[in-house]
Amino acid sequence: MVGGGQLARMTCQAAISLGVGFRVLADSMTDSAALVTPGTVVGDYRSLDDLLAFAAGCDVLTFDHEHVPNPHLTGLVGAAVTVHPGPEALHHAQDKLAMRSALTGLGIRCPRFEPVSEPAEVAKFAATSGWPVVLKAIRGGYDGRGVWVCDTVEQAAQVLGHGIAVMAEEHVAFRRELAAQVARSPHNQAAAYPVVETVQRDGVCHEVIAPAPGIAAAVAEEAQSIALRIAAELGVTGLLAVEMFDTAGGLLVNELAMRPHNSGHWTIDGAKTSQFEQHLRAVLDLPLGEPGRVALYAVMANVFGGADPDIYSRYVHVMAADPGVKVHLYGKAARPGRKLGHVTVLGDDPAVLRARAGRAARYLGSGEE
Amino acid sequence: MVGGGQLARMTCQAAISLGVGFRVLADSMTDSAALVTPGTVVGDYRSLDDLLAFAAGCDVLTFDHEHVPNPHLTGLVGAAVTVHPGPEALHHAQDKLAMRSALTGLGIRCPRFEPVSEPAEVAKFAATSGWPVVLKAIRGGYDGRGVWVCDTVEQAAQVLGHGIAVMAEEHVAFRRELAAQVARSPHNQAAAYPVVETVQRDGVCHEVIAPAPGIAAAVAEEAQSIALRIAAELGVTGLLAVEMFDTAGGLLVNELAMRPHNSGHWTIDGAKTSQFEQHLRAVLDLPLGEPGRVALYAVMANVFGGADPDIYSRYVHVMAADPGVKVHLYGKAARPGRKLGHVTVLGDDPAVLRARAGRAARYLGSGEE
Repeated sequence: MVGGGQLARMTCQAAISLGVGFRVLADSMTDSAALVTPGTVVGDYRSLDDLLAFAAGCDVLTFDHEHVPNPHLTGLVGAAVTVHPGPEALHHAQDKLAMRSALTGLGIRCPRFEPVSEPAEVAKFAATSGWPVVLKAIRGGYDGRGVWVCDTVEQAAQVLGHGIAVMAEEHVAFRRELAAQVARSPHNQAAAYPVVETVQRDGVCHEVIAPAPGIAAAVAEEAQSIALRIAAELGVTGLLAVEMFDTAGGLLVNELAMRPHNSGHWTIDGAKTSQFEQHLRAVLDLPLGEPGRVALYAVMANVFGGADPDIYSRYVHVMAADPGVKVHLYGKAARPGRKLGHVTVLGDDPAVLRARAGRAARYLGSGEE
Repeated sequence: MVGGGQLARMTCQAAISLGVGFRVLADSMTDSAALVTPGTVVGDYRSLDDLLAFAAGCDVLTFDHEHVPNPHLTGLVGAAVTVHPGPEALHHAQDKLAMRSALTGLGIRCPRFEPVSEPAEVAKFAATSGWPVVLKAIRGGYDGRGVWVCDTVEQAAQVLGHGIAVMAEEHVAFRRELAAQVARSPHNQAAAYPVVETVQRDGVCHEVIAPAPGIAAAVAEEAQSIALRIAAELGVTGLLAVEMFDTAGGLLVNELAMRPHNSGHWTIDGAKTSQFEQHLRAVLDLPLGEPGRVALYAVMANVFGGADPDIYSRYVHVMAADPGVKVHLYGKAARPGRKLGHVTVLGDDPAVLRARAGRAARYLGSGEE
């Protein structure tokens, strides 16, 4: 796995059960996954030489993030490295304009979009879609970075002044955000997880409720169908997470991620096959595992660092207060706002679970009651 | 953790979620846990120097097996190493005669027993308890090794001729075997897992059904109470598994293990807190986790090697045949009869689950349909 973040760390855990040899190409030996994975290689994912050297010891190469330059992916394939997901698929997770264009071409509904480079183009877009207009970096954005909600053409001009390629998107009035996660193997087997509700603040996922409370069966099936169709049409291998807006006018696709995803962390404790095991099974072209739940509801809450970095002194209190909380820490040094881990709780009542998970995550991260 | 077997391997997985630094003292770098644990130290658990050197980097020392000589454990404690479980408790898992005597002293029922060194003593024991007589090595036996069922005084004489210290035990006519697993922390917090049925062949555990099907609530509570009482009275810290015979005359304690145990492997997939996480929480004196089940039943079946060592070629078929089977492989080279892994299935009907788990384990291990 290229990248040594928490996704690689949790994939490492899944690889142990499967008896699969697992190695990581990390930025440093203190990366989240490097701390727990024997034989970690330190190297630069932006260097084709480093990627080729790392791949030499692997049967299959896969990714903890989408930042490996696409030409390098093509270079790896050209050097007979088995890469999942492949460059053609990953292109759509790396380039939001390509993604929007491809989905629109498939008849899959997205927010209205338009590449823009001049304030006048934003103003023209707003004339149809109204203000605010969302400007998005076409490449490299994640966790709310690279997204600007602009109320005026002056604000838009300021964003355009950064000099990065952006596109304009309509600001969607949604009821809530959903995510549909599926796995697809090179053999073309697929499996769909229950559709979840994600709760974002400032563009960052804070909570996931699985399944989305009160979701109509038809909507859940439509969301799963959309995700399965995208996986098949774009040739995704491994996991695909499709983030969607649930609007009065139906489902709109917002983002794609072609890897294990924050919206699927609940599956470690809440599903028969975790997303990390499923990703390994998919990229190794093994038969996929059962994605069903083991509880009526699971709620996952992310743990963000606060002012006091000593999360281990609070850890004991979280465990004592609620023995049913599953704590997952990523081995990262605490910094304000940094994602340090997550907690998951299982049970019958999503409101109770949200309160439990939220309290545990908040207290663990920042000491706030 | 001293010892690099599969118990340490699965404890390593649990340590990753907890964000706990985890190291192993292994016999070799190809040990099951050494393959997956960074910073593994190769050394001899029979050497106090090796143990002291390993312990120097650790806050708490715990064990994957019970074979560390008790004087070394005392030596570690004398050198201010925090050891859980401690030497006094572990003595009862290392010396079956001490265990039987201690439990009898506590009024906890065991099979009748008597230390023997002469055939005449065995004959005298049999005069009261009848034949067959079970001879057990007082130290060092496990997985059926060190246990001899003798039908005649001549057979007993042959066992005594080995020159190892043994005791005689009555051959118990049991209805089935049960195991009660509890955790106890230095703070004296305790948690009890559901009581399970274990299915042994030739003294080796093949299957575990959690909870024991049809067990009366009073019997389950009695089994849990016995285990909790043993943990408290013997000062066990960490996990304690108590193997019992369920007989017409009530429960009799057979064996104790003071570590994660094969009878608790089902908890990885079937309980809210796995035995491996629970052991870490207990020995680190963290609050214990909820031991409850996530499904009505879990069945675990051990995978034993057969004539054909290539289990990975059969792996795909097991996964394809039953996507709900959770496969856990230990990274060991396959040899006939060697425990290579286990599988777990979750569901509502123990008979169906036993058939599914048994089929998967048998085929994976040996290719037998």
